[in-house]
Amino acid sequence: MITSTDNQKLKEIRKLTRSRKRTDLFIAEGEDLVASALAHGWKAEYVLRAGVDVEEKLLADASTLGSGTRVIGVYRERWSEPGGWLSVFLDGIKDPGNVGTILRSAHALCDGPVVIGPRCADPFGPKAMRASMGSIFGRPPARAEAAELSGLKIGLVQDAPETLRELGLTRGPGPLVTPVVVLVGSEREGLGPDALNAADVRARIPIRPDGPDSLNAAMAATVALYELAHRIKPNG
Amino acid sequence: MITSTDNQKLKEIRKLTRSRKRTDLFIAEGEDLVASALAHGWKAEYVLRAGVDVEEKLLADASTLGSGTRVIGVYRERWSEPGGWLSVFLDGIKDPGNVGTILRSAHALCDGPVVIGPRCADPFGPKAMRASMGSIFGRPPARAEAAELSGLKIGLVQDAPETLRELGLTRGPGPLVTPVVVLVGSEREGLGPDALNAADVRARIPIRPDGPDSLNAAMAATVALYELAHRIKPNG
Repeated sequence: MITSTDNQKLKEIRKLTRSRKRTDLFIAEGEDLVASALAHGWKAEYVLRAGVDVEEKLLADASTLGSGTRVIGVYRERWSEPGGWLSVFLDGIKDPGNVGTILRSAHALCDGPVVIGPRCADPFGPKAMRASMGSIFGRPPARAEAAELSGLKIGLVQDAPETLRELGLTRGPGPLVTPVVVLVGSEREGLGPDALNAADVRARIPIRPDGPDSLNAAMAATVALYELAHRIKPNG
Repeated sequence: MITSTDNQKLKEIRKLTRSRKRTDLFIAEGEDLVASALAHGWKAEYVLRAGVDVEEKLLADASTLGSGTRVIGVYRERWSEPGGWLSVFLDGIKDPGNVGTILRSAHALCDGPVVIGPRCADPFGPKAMRASMGSIFGRPPARAEAAELSGLKIGLVQDAPETLRELGLTRGPGPLVTPVVVLVGSEREGLGPDALNAADVRARIPIRPDGPDSLNAAMAATVALYELAHRIKPNG
């Protein structure tokens, strides 16, 4: 049982809650996330359980969740390769909650990984981890530039003339034979020049004229994947 | 210029950042939200601008945003009546970020207000305000029990046999002549018994069998409104 804050593992966990520069280790906090890692076959570097491996208060102090933290696991990053019939590419999504939420939505709605592009929040950071609700273990993200992706690249752009539905993508009598990647930018800045250049077509999600200027980035990504999922997945 | 933390307005703002019990006042923090209030014709009880009405540091200390807060406005709640061709009812959505995000999505995608049901986070609290990005001024929420709502009530239930699309709602040759309300519960607990009883039909959003157990509640509400918006709005 760890009884000192000077313990090397606690020191490492505290460091990982603040910054993950120059390390490929990350933490999963709470029973749900640690159970999810296990269910998806991830082996922890180590797991600390409150009252078993470490004093309850010491674990709570090291955690970003505060009191009541039952368990923290430390894992090593894994990354997927870009691919799948349908996936999403993120450009400048700086809010970790949005990145994590998109990991979860993509896991629910499409077969490819979330591709983390430039200027995005760390998908393995504590906030993104929490929002992903374990989907980061079920389907780890990929890393790439937009230009490196193959398939039809649809840039989600709020002033595009056509909506996603109006693009007329359809499986028709047989499957659409090219993979599709949706490119999603931040709400304020939209897609950067590299992503815009890489886009084969542009489309928007229809928004009421009396509504807000935009949807939240995670909402936009989720709606786009929902709209496209039944049009292009090869089976069903 | 306010130069003391003992100022009555600063005291009130600090109180409103923590708890809004027994008051119908709320705060909008930051230039975007205050501009949005103005654009939607809301009159502030008072507005404090950093360096104009109050010392910069004092305003930052009172704010939930911390340093760099330029302005805080104090407003009085307004509530809508339930209604519209399409709206959403929330049951036990305790995360204020989700409540605020749904306010924004509903403002973008449907014509009715978000109806705040039992056991939801305060839509006028600082976190929900921020996530709503001003949509709370554009279309204030309503309050009701599920049973009080008129129109076709669709309970979003993850184990429903039919998907929203399979319900076959359509405008057909003419408009669907009944309003539709989507009932959304929390991710963990789903819809409570009262909302389930009030639901006329149940439907789910299709999720991949190899995916997570559920979508985030704000994602589910947004996808449902997106799916239904083009099927039932009376014009276009």
